[in-house]
Amino acid sequence: MSQGISGSLAGRVTITAIAREAGVSVPTVSRVLNGRADVSPATRERVEAILREHGYRRRPARGRASSGLIDLVFNDLDSPWAVEIIRGVEEVAHATGIGTVVSAIHDQSASARQWLSNLRARATDGVIFVTSDVTPPLHAELRRLDIPVAVVDPAGGPVNDVPTIGATNWAGGRAATEHLLSLGHRRIGFIAGPERLLCSRARLDGYGAALAAAGVAADPELVRPGDFYHESGWAGADALLRLERPPTAIFASSDQMAFGAYEAVRRRGLRVPDDVSVVGFDDLPESRWASPPLTTVRQPLAEMGLLAARTVLRLARGEDLETQRVELATELVVRDSTAAA
Amino acid sequence: MSQGISGSLAGRVTITAIAREAGVSVPTVSRVLNGRADVSPATRERVEAILREHGYRRRPARGRASSGLIDLVFNDLDSPWAVEIIRGVEEVAHATGIGTVVSAIHDQSASARQWLSNLRARATDGVIFVTSDVTPPLHAELRRLDIPVAVVDPAGGPVNDVPTIGATNWAGGRAATEHLLSLGHRRIGFIAGPERLLCSRARLDGYGAALAAAGVAADPELVRPGDFYHESGWAGADALLRLERPPTAIFASSDQMAFGAYEAVRRRGLRVPDDVSVVGFDDLPESRWASPPLTTVRQPLAEMGLLAARTVLRLARGEDLETQRVELATELVVRDSTAAA
Repeated sequence: MSQGISGSLAGRVTITAIAREAGVSVPTVSRVLNGRADVSPATRERVEAILREHGYRRRPARGRASSGLIDLVFNDLDSPWAVEIIRGVEEVAHATGIGTVVSAIHDQSASARQWLSNLRARATDGVIFVTSDVTPPLHAELRRLDIPVAVVDPAGGPVNDVPTIGATNWAGGRAATEHLLSLGHRRIGFIAGPERLLCSRARLDGYGAALAAAGVAADPELVRPGDFYHESGWAGADALLRLERPPTAIFASSDQMAFGAYEAVRRRGLRVPDDVSVVGFDDLPESRWASPPLTTVRQPLAEMGLLAARTVLRLARGEDLETQRVELATELVVRDSTAAA
Repeated sequence: MSQGISGSLAGRVTITAIAREAGVSVPTVSRVLNGRADVSPATRERVEAILREHGYRRRPARGRASSGLIDLVFNDLDSPWAVEIIRGVEEVAHATGIGTVVSAIHDQSASARQWLSNLRARATDGVIFVTSDVTPPLHAELRRLDIPVAVVDPAGGPVNDVPTIGATNWAGGRAATEHLLSLGHRRIGFIAGPERLLCSRARLDGYGAALAAAGVAADPELVRPGDFYHESGWAGADALLRLERPPTAIFASSDQMAFGAYEAVRRRGLRVPDDVSVVGFDDLPESRWASPPLTTVRQPLAEMGLLAARTVLRLARGEDLETQRVELATELVVRDSTAAA
């Protein structure tokens, strides 16, 4: 970024394609775009012609080639979850001499407008959104400002060709459920995440797939709604434990809800894992500090942040992405909250 | 900040003092410093003369009057603790149209140099350090760059007149211990924080003061070392529970160590609070989610961040501070981890 590389894509043409067509290397195209002297006049002319031909749009000349900043945007800074992602983004940014601007848009449209105005003022090099979709008007505005975007843990499906970095939620849901099945559990409760999030559905489907593969009939009364927060985990687990035939294990699809389940178990005078096994999803630092330490599905949050930072920085340099959609692997981490049925 | 106020202090003289001497208001001095037109020529001349007389140094004219950024610097982004402070700083910054640049210096001098170089490049309006001291060389460099500084939760005593925002650690330590005494506990274990931090000492002294006031003799074997992290809380509590006369209550001077104490209690087949009461210090969000929910001393971390942001923004505007040292009140939050002895 410090070289002030200033190209970006108006249409679908890429620097790589320009380089190929001109018969030069990608760095040479960058040098032309940056007005550097170390390119022969003939090469410069050839590259410029091809750039013009493809309507390649340079960044406006008003000195915002690189602000040395990327923006990391949360809906709310209300969870320890956030610091994991910040850590990953900051690691890449710091090493590159880039500052990480952290903000929350607080899900209010007035605040979002203010945020966009701040963003414009600081001429950021790129924006990373966390667990939200980039709405078409916002996308249009960012595009107009020539600001690269990536989304970590996307809320919904693909939108506007914005690159996304997620985790293998379905595989994680399946692995957690298989673990409980392998311990002999057959009545396994599930506490779901918000319905509007695709990751919630994927975790639930992974749970269903594991049950089906084991020949265990799905019992709808064992599936409870939740919103990823503690209280809903408590309420869901409490309802499950009050069933005539309560589950012997509960898979809460977030760590925070799993801690809620711990508390529901405790309040009924029962113990984890002796009476009820509990599995979470996330592997927040707190899952190691829980008592008992929580068996959970690790989402590589810091790595997701790291990859998102690399992605927007590559886009800012005008590089091509191999793919618009990446899912990093989840991994079951077995600790002390699960035991034989 | 959007007004681009660009004055700052070379020596000890303040804008307020300048205003007093010139017989004008502080905003008038600011207007002069900003080269605004709405000041009479006579007033401008008088103020300018006094500014010169006191060697008042303006910000360099190289366009860094306001970058619209403040830097928030952690040693490490390894704790949910961090997100609370980020939340407070971001709230103030966001409302003011300022971006919050979050970084970690990872306690390595190479990284610190890199960080300082990044900071210089982005011409930040102010820096907030969290739980660290501003070393004299760093302070000199920031002063040379004319960048205001504040410290949240200072590690040591006053250094270089840098404003600090802390919490009433001694009063918090005392309140937690009094709570346990009021429940009838007489053998109360204490798990300390790192010795190099002044806040650790203050919490320990608060504990000692409460015991002394209640006429309970201090027993050195009840005080164990710790480093605020989970593992040391576990080890400290485990050692306490193995004593010939174990304590009936444990005051861990951080929430994370309190969770470690929970686990030590659980592994010995005991229960919190039935067999051992536990109190923490911080009131991280996780303390509400712990099972049982943790009785703890609330540090107003978000408010500390908020005040730190306001402080550096005031300094950047050339305003005077009423005091260089603020301690926000801690508060005992009683939940379910403490019970009668």
